[in-house]
Amino acid sequence: MIVKDISLNKIVQGIESVDEKWTEKARERTAQLVMPARALGRLHDISERLCGIQQTLEPSIDRKATLVMAGDHGVVEEGISAFPREVTGAMVQTFLKGGAGINAIARHAGAEVWVVDMGIIPELDQDLLEGGDRFLVRKVARGTDNLAKGPAMTRSDAEKSVLTGFELASELFMKGVDILGTGDMGIGNTTPSAAIGAVITGNTVEMMVGRGTGVDDEGLLRKQDAVRQGIHVNRPERGDGLDVLSKTGGFEIGGIAGCVLAGAYHKRPVVIDGYISTAGALIAYAICPAVVDYLFAGHCSEEPGHRVMLKHLGLDPILDLGMRLGEGTGGALAMGIMEGALKVFKEVLTFEEANVSGSK
Amino acid sequence: MIVKDISLNKIVQGIESVDEKWTEKARERTAQLVMPARALGRLHDISERLCGIQQTLEPSIDRKATLVMAGDHGVVEEGISAFPREVTGAMVQTFLKGGAGINAIARHAGAEVWVVDMGIIPELDQDLLEGGDRFLVRKVARGTDNLAKGPAMTRSDAEKSVLTGFELASELFMKGVDILGTGDMGIGNTTPSAAIGAVITGNTVEMMVGRGTGVDDEGLLRKQDAVRQGIHVNRPERGDGLDVLSKTGGFEIGGIAGCVLAGAYHKRPVVIDGYISTAGALIAYAICPAVVDYLFAGHCSEEPGHRVMLKHLGLDPILDLGMRLGEGTGGALAMGIMEGALKVFKEVLTFEEANVSGSK
Repeated sequence: MIVKDISLNKIVQGIESVDEKWTEKARERTAQLVMPARALGRLHDISERLCGIQQTLEPSIDRKATLVMAGDHGVVEEGISAFPREVTGAMVQTFLKGGAGINAIARHAGAEVWVVDMGIIPELDQDLLEGGDRFLVRKVARGTDNLAKGPAMTRSDAEKSVLTGFELASELFMKGVDILGTGDMGIGNTTPSAAIGAVITGNTVEMMVGRGTGVDDEGLLRKQDAVRQGIHVNRPERGDGLDVLSKTGGFEIGGIAGCVLAGAYHKRPVVIDGYISTAGALIAYAICPAVVDYLFAGHCSEEPGHRVMLKHLGLDPILDLGMRLGEGTGGALAMGIMEGALKVFKEVLTFEEANVSGSK
Repeated sequence: MIVKDISLNKIVQGIESVDEKWTEKARERTAQLVMPARALGRLHDISERLCGIQQTLEPSIDRKATLVMAGDHGVVEEGISAFPREVTGAMVQTFLKGGAGINAIARHAGAEVWVVDMGIIPELDQDLLEGGDRFLVRKVARGTDNLAKGPAMTRSDAEKSVLTGFELASELFMKGVDILGTGDMGIGNTTPSAAIGAVITGNTVEMMVGRGTGVDDEGLLRKQDAVRQGIHVNRPERGDGLDVLSKTGGFEIGGIAGCVLAGAYHKRPVVIDGYISTAGALIAYAICPAVVDYLFAGHCSEEPGHRVMLKHLGLDPILDLGMRLGEGTGGALAMGIMEGALKVFKEVLTFEEANVSGSK
């Protein structure tokens, strides 16, 4: 299966909707489990979707990975973030030390963590970093341009970021990863995500812009202004995912869109995380709507626009715990629930096996 | 620590509210973690509550157990359940074979499953059963009486069921169990639970009665009638937990109330499951309101009255996945989230350790 030097067109042509045949078969098995009809609610939906995606009644998500995509954002100069931009690179180093939220949650979920420099400003040498074997440098550029003043990147860099994400996710799938979580790191990246959300879902800037890592009231107004200006100046084309991505950014969001496309292309489940990952999924969805068949929403973020984005994708979040960290934390935490759902599907006896009479 | 032949009064006298000192210290540590302030939302609340309960900044829920309490219900003769009463005993046998929903989810969560015959109709010989070493026969009686016609049990049997639950949970805690989930099995037991909910929360019978395992419209009306009649005939005393329990039943609900009291008495966290477990928690709460400090709500059930019960206890459910199986499934699944929360609390570096600058 070719995953290098493949064009976006070829990728889209290679993506098929999930064949409902296996989902149907899975529903039949669920109906036989020794419990009232569909008594474990969404756990059944999850296991049946996994059967459909993997085309089997013995689905497995044993090998799990989270790809954390990092990038810097020119729009930070508009004063839209509570944290200085240096934090992007510092957090990448923290991921490699195993000391961040995603590391703790991924260890708990039994998921590998891979970190990608999609376009951060500092040059981190992967050979010198602790845990560097899981650090991949694929810098598209050293940070995006300021979306409030013009396009965040060229169309060609937008395509490159998507194809890079596709290639890296594809490599993980070909190494045997069964399920991929997407994660992000990039100071300022709720701003491009809000712009993407406003353009693609058609909702207002006010509804889409939240406080991110915690800006104050004035910062919130600056953030709304930046998004409004960015849309006004750049006029992104709603139906053209690459155009929206190039106008708003960022490189890590493009990388996430590539991961989402890769899941659908290789018929593997992808669990998106919060606001930024979902912005990436919106870009992928604009490029190829069939990707949603392979997507799970790990959680619903505290960022108010997130629910609207998920609704646009028709995804119901698995968790709703007031989280808003990103890094892939919500997706990795949800993998545990998905694995529980699969164990129910595969290990619970049928009424017949258990010799229990059904409902009257 | 005496746990046999202890009176309910002594138990209540032995329960203290959680000392906020450790919760406060835990909040200070959370504030230093290398992430925006409280960016993992409810995960922080969970880890901090566990610090408070265990009075440490190194809390652990490594050893987990679920106690599944089983009992039969006289009110089944009113035609209030979609399943025949024989299913109670048959499901107990399924638990012991390891083939039910709770077994699959508990294996996933790394929790032991203990099954207790609190008062089912059949006599299952524990020595003859596969997995019988985790089957405990503590029959209070062979099923309750029909609550629609009079008290489900005597006050003395109500007390006995609570003390039995207390004793068994205490034994598990003394064996080193760090966290206990409560589970239930008993065909018909959403009916007494609805009665308990209506009496203790003061809500209407219509609001509290749901479809349980799946009764049809006529069954739902019969169920409402049974609860209404039960309350009318028995006049349970809202403020007297044992009175409410004796009037409505059942033995497994009393056992669960005992588990909840045991958690608070031994200062260990207890995760309640769905509708029936929460009815047990309401009984324990009526006996001793301080128990809520030690309680976690694993999930919110599809049973419509459940949210109202949780609100009465001031508990926010961890999961909300449309589950309505009982058996302890929601509580056991939530333990995984709680463990993830603890790993974040204990493993994530501080800003200082990670050498990352804080917010501006």
